[in-house]
Amino acid sequence: MLGGTAVHFSLAASFFTEVRPVGPVGDDFGAAEFGVLEGRGVPVDDVERVPGGASFFWRGRYEYDLNVAHTEDTRLGVFADFDPKLSAASQEADVLFLANIQPDLQRRVRGLCGAPRFVALDSMNLWIETARDSLFAAISEVECVILNDAEIRQLTGESNLARAARAVMERGPRAVVAKQGEYGAALFTEGGFFALPGFPLEDVRDPTGAGDSFAGGFLGYIDSHDGEIDEASLRRAMGYGTVLASFNVEDFGTERVARLSREEIDERFADLVAMTRFEPLSAAAE
Amino acid sequence: MLGGTAVHFSLAASFFTEVRPVGPVGDDFGAAEFGVLEGRGVPVDDVERVPGGASFFWRGRYEYDLNVAHTEDTRLGVFADFDPKLSAASQEADVLFLANIQPDLQRRVRGLCGAPRFVALDSMNLWIETARDSLFAAISEVECVILNDAEIRQLTGESNLARAARAVMERGPRAVVAKQGEYGAALFTEGGFFALPGFPLEDVRDPTGAGDSFAGGFLGYIDSHDGEIDEASLRRAMGYGTVLASFNVEDFGTERVARLSREEIDERFADLVAMTRFEPLSAAAE
Repeated sequence: MLGGTAVHFSLAASFFTEVRPVGPVGDDFGAAEFGVLEGRGVPVDDVERVPGGASFFWRGRYEYDLNVAHTEDTRLGVFADFDPKLSAASQEADVLFLANIQPDLQRRVRGLCGAPRFVALDSMNLWIETARDSLFAAISEVECVILNDAEIRQLTGESNLARAARAVMERGPRAVVAKQGEYGAALFTEGGFFALPGFPLEDVRDPTGAGDSFAGGFLGYIDSHDGEIDEASLRRAMGYGTVLASFNVEDFGTERVARLSREEIDERFADLVAMTRFEPLSAAAE
Repeated sequence: MLGGTAVHFSLAASFFTEVRPVGPVGDDFGAAEFGVLEGRGVPVDDVERVPGGASFFWRGRYEYDLNVAHTEDTRLGVFADFDPKLSAASQEADVLFLANIQPDLQRRVRGLCGAPRFVALDSMNLWIETARDSLFAAISEVECVILNDAEIRQLTGESNLARAARAVMERGPRAVVAKQGEYGAALFTEGGFFALPGFPLEDVRDPTGAGDSFAGGFLGYIDSHDGEIDEASLRRAMGYGTVLASFNVEDFGTERVARLSREEIDERFADLVAMTRFEPLSAAAE
């Protein structure tokens, strides 16, 4: 199936803002694949075609509850020798997402951009194990870290997630998002804690890309929001991330998000607000 | 450490209502152990002392993230030949919690009670595997099932939790609570879905009994609530369950809950309301 962080992220973010994916693809990424991005109005001029190359490839399997993924095959392909180049339009980005690549490359992309007001970073166990210092250097230059909860524990050596998130924030970021699969996602900031469950679905067909769709909804909303990026707007971003992730898993690959409408997003967002609300009862009413 | 469902549940529920635990203990359950219950005003006249017997015993270890418990030793002790007897006061209970015992015993206790308005049931993998039909019969006689999410999947053979919860409700209960460890708990009802994260704590010392404290806070609140048990009151019950579970894990055994105050509970409940709230932004404000 068509996938990859750039594709899932871009499709999700495209409902909120103009998103410019940067990265290399091989010959196997053809007209049909570009068509999916162009169908959502995503400019693809920063997607670098490498003749004779093969696109990044992942194959894995999921456990019974779809919560745990086991990687069976990863091929870096054209990513192995990637040297990021950004168009002028991309260099002026207001919001930047450094997807999961080698952290020194993330820092280089970060350095190519002018003065984005909000930068978020994703990573994975491979870089935590093999490029820890580089990863911490990259983290110190961003506003927000978006990782799976197990990765936050591994990165910091803290088994307690609240402590682990604080340890990440002590490196610089003002926000840490812990992705938790079907359990949803938690947001740690200096002033608070917020969490949302995964949107309940009776039909989950393919969890692949849910985390990237979450990041796309989260940062797409942030970019579309003109006001200050405060606790309230970060919480709404969590809501949009949750909603986009939930649509992503309803079908294989990019099928569902490619045919999604903004109206469906707003409806589900309203449902999510309603299904997470509870009220203390006044003493009088009790 | 002092523990067991009846102890954790009773202490948690004691902040909301009079709770009367029913069950057998051995000689090892002495004045100090009774003192913990009596210290919270819990009537112990339905706790049956079995001379020469040993109390139910559990020993286990937790994984690194404290989310997964591995049982190392379980001894039924006096529970092996338990024949439940209920005082008149217990038979008139308005709200009943059938803790995790053999499901035919749960049905007998249920039958000994007059006309409780709300009955909840807990169980475990052992009964799902060895007494499935009895368990379904017990489930058909209660309003609410409280289980770990993995148990709900195992019970119904449904890997999707929303479908699994619906399959349980089709047997009779109007509410299914899925306990999810540090991820919190989810409530499924005919009309809706609700979920709360675990209360974020930087110091978790002992997760043992968290699920029982949750059930105690949940049902204690339900019993204290005079109005209809509707969606709003079930959601508040989820909040009190979450709060009591969070205090339980802050110290070993029953230490923390035994010295807890109602004021601390209400403060944390208010914090939980605040930390799960998010608001859509009006189009005008955006």
